[in-house]
Amino acid sequence: MFSPIDTRPVILTGDRTTGPLHLGHYVGSLKSRVALQHSHEQFLLLADTQALTDNAQDPEKVRRNVLEVAIDYLAVGIDPALTTICVQSALPALAELTLLYLNFVTVSRLERNPTIKTEIQLRGFERDVPAGFLCYPVAQAADITAFKATVVPVGEDQAPLIEQTNEIVRRLNRQIGRDVLVEAIAMVPSVGRLPGVDGKAKMSKSQGNAIPLSASKDEIRDAVRRMYTDPDHLRVSDPGKVEGNVVFTYLDAFCEDRQLVDEMKAHYRRGGLGDVTLKRHLEEVLQALLAPIRERRAHYAAEPDYVMGIVREGTRRARERTEATLAELRSALGLFSLA
Amino acid sequence: MFSPIDTRPVILTGDRTTGPLHLGHYVGSLKSRVALQHSHEQFLLLADTQALTDNAQDPEKVRRNVLEVAIDYLAVGIDPALTTICVQSALPALAELTLLYLNFVTVSRLERNPTIKTEIQLRGFERDVPAGFLCYPVAQAADITAFKATVVPVGEDQAPLIEQTNEIVRRLNRQIGRDVLVEAIAMVPSVGRLPGVDGKAKMSKSQGNAIPLSASKDEIRDAVRRMYTDPDHLRVSDPGKVEGNVVFTYLDAFCEDRQLVDEMKAHYRRGGLGDVTLKRHLEEVLQALLAPIRERRAHYAAEPDYVMGIVREGTRRARERTEATLAELRSALGLFSLA
Repeated sequence: MFSPIDTRPVILTGDRTTGPLHLGHYVGSLKSRVALQHSHEQFLLLADTQALTDNAQDPEKVRRNVLEVAIDYLAVGIDPALTTICVQSALPALAELTLLYLNFVTVSRLERNPTIKTEIQLRGFERDVPAGFLCYPVAQAADITAFKATVVPVGEDQAPLIEQTNEIVRRLNRQIGRDVLVEAIAMVPSVGRLPGVDGKAKMSKSQGNAIPLSASKDEIRDAVRRMYTDPDHLRVSDPGKVEGNVVFTYLDAFCEDRQLVDEMKAHYRRGGLGDVTLKRHLEEVLQALLAPIRERRAHYAAEPDYVMGIVREGTRRARERTEATLAELRSALGLFSLA
Repeated sequence: MFSPIDTRPVILTGDRTTGPLHLGHYVGSLKSRVALQHSHEQFLLLADTQALTDNAQDPEKVRRNVLEVAIDYLAVGIDPALTTICVQSALPALAELTLLYLNFVTVSRLERNPTIKTEIQLRGFERDVPAGFLCYPVAQAADITAFKATVVPVGEDQAPLIEQTNEIVRRLNRQIGRDVLVEAIAMVPSVGRLPGVDGKAKMSKSQGNAIPLSASKDEIRDAVRRMYTDPDHLRVSDPGKVEGNVVFTYLDAFCEDRQLVDEMKAHYRRGGLGDVTLKRHLEEVLQALLAPIRERRAHYAAEPDYVMGIVREGTRRARERTEATLAELRSALGLFSLA
């Protein structure tokens, strides 16, 4: 007779639509999202508006990757019946909340945000920081609060963004006199960031050191062959180093057989386990992991209208949710309503 | 068989909804809007979102004055058949355009804006400038461009805001490769700002030196009596000063009979024209001006649903216009569209 109210915790997460996803995304977030969709009400944001904050010169790339990332989601096992996939720029309430929240945050508070400070340095903006980039923690607060998300998976270096969100939540709830907005908890993943195949800290498409989810059999084989091991491990019989050896980092991340990995580590350390054998094992693991993902990816890539239908339906649901929060907040603050 | 295309120049202007309008607004803008609505396609924005940038602590006041300012408009002769009256916060495209434009403007450019620098000092924000306040020139660029306004009436000190708008217009048109957005021209009024009845530079409700459009007969009489003249003009026979004499400033602004005003100035300068006589004349002029406005104001104030119906219909029209610009711009930039 009535729809049961969903009482599961609400997760909001997503990806900037700047390129197709890769193995780093899989181990860092996609895998856990596939699990979490059974216990949580999960929203995945295709973050094209946020991608523009440092890609304003190339909106075409940002647009194209909305579909690519959606295909990645479906390929890894995100189920649109369990997870809502939606497009950030098609949710006007997010822009409206951002503009509203900007009145409750000072410029100096934004400039002090450690995540933003680091990112500004990384991107070499210096004094030419786009205003949108400085404001993006507020836009992120709008995203999180619009969905009333209680759990937000973030990298370790992004915890200050959740702190900024909760500051805005408390500031507004205090002014209103009751808790209209909800605070969020940062869910920091237990696994560290997956390095690139060249051993560099970050796997990224632009660095050419990433294995995309769409990688072909040959691309996977090539990537594993190029993988950084122990440069001092010259002969099979030599003892080798496991720490900083990318092949072992990947085996730790992807091989389900923990005992086997431990045995291989011991063998490698004492000598007698060659890089070729080691890499062959990792290649098998990755081929087995990526084959069904690649297959599903090709299936969805051939049906862009079907995928966009899922995105459209998810965005419609997300619009309802975010418009409801905006209306509730505006009314609680005593702001104008045309209705 | 088809709707004629409106080729009149487009004016966008409006008022922050922080209080009912007064004589300063009448002489500075309302009077010319009533004239311009015949030759221009005119949009009046009830700027509640912008009012929040420095009134976030009192959203109730901002909301209440949406209706008050709309009543003022109708009372002075704004004709909803000729002018579109609309509510800023009910136009989501304005927030979306603001967020988009923020990516094309640097923080340091905003900090250099002379209008913003002055306003920050005026408000005593210092380091605690709300981010929304710093970003408001960009929000204003969103307003102007969303309506494709070509003419924007501004105070002399606000010309930098139009320059900022046109910078954004040129920046985006250059990236797109054709003129999707249109540049606006600042229309600076020929008359200076009307001083308060106490002689202070700015008439403002909070200073208690304003004559609101709703002023009663007695309030008008009182205000004129309190009006600052020449403090050295002690006896009627004394010569008096016209410069800085608020009564003459008001006569210049409101008395249609220029010859009479010139004669009175000469008479006052040589002595023999008393402040009481002078003020009696100004009072007559103001009573004649404000009586019909007050009457119409009372009529509309008694029919808030009727007024809100006009605002709702105007906002619907404005929504169509602004959504169309947003869609056109997003498509020209190659951004995502769900449709």
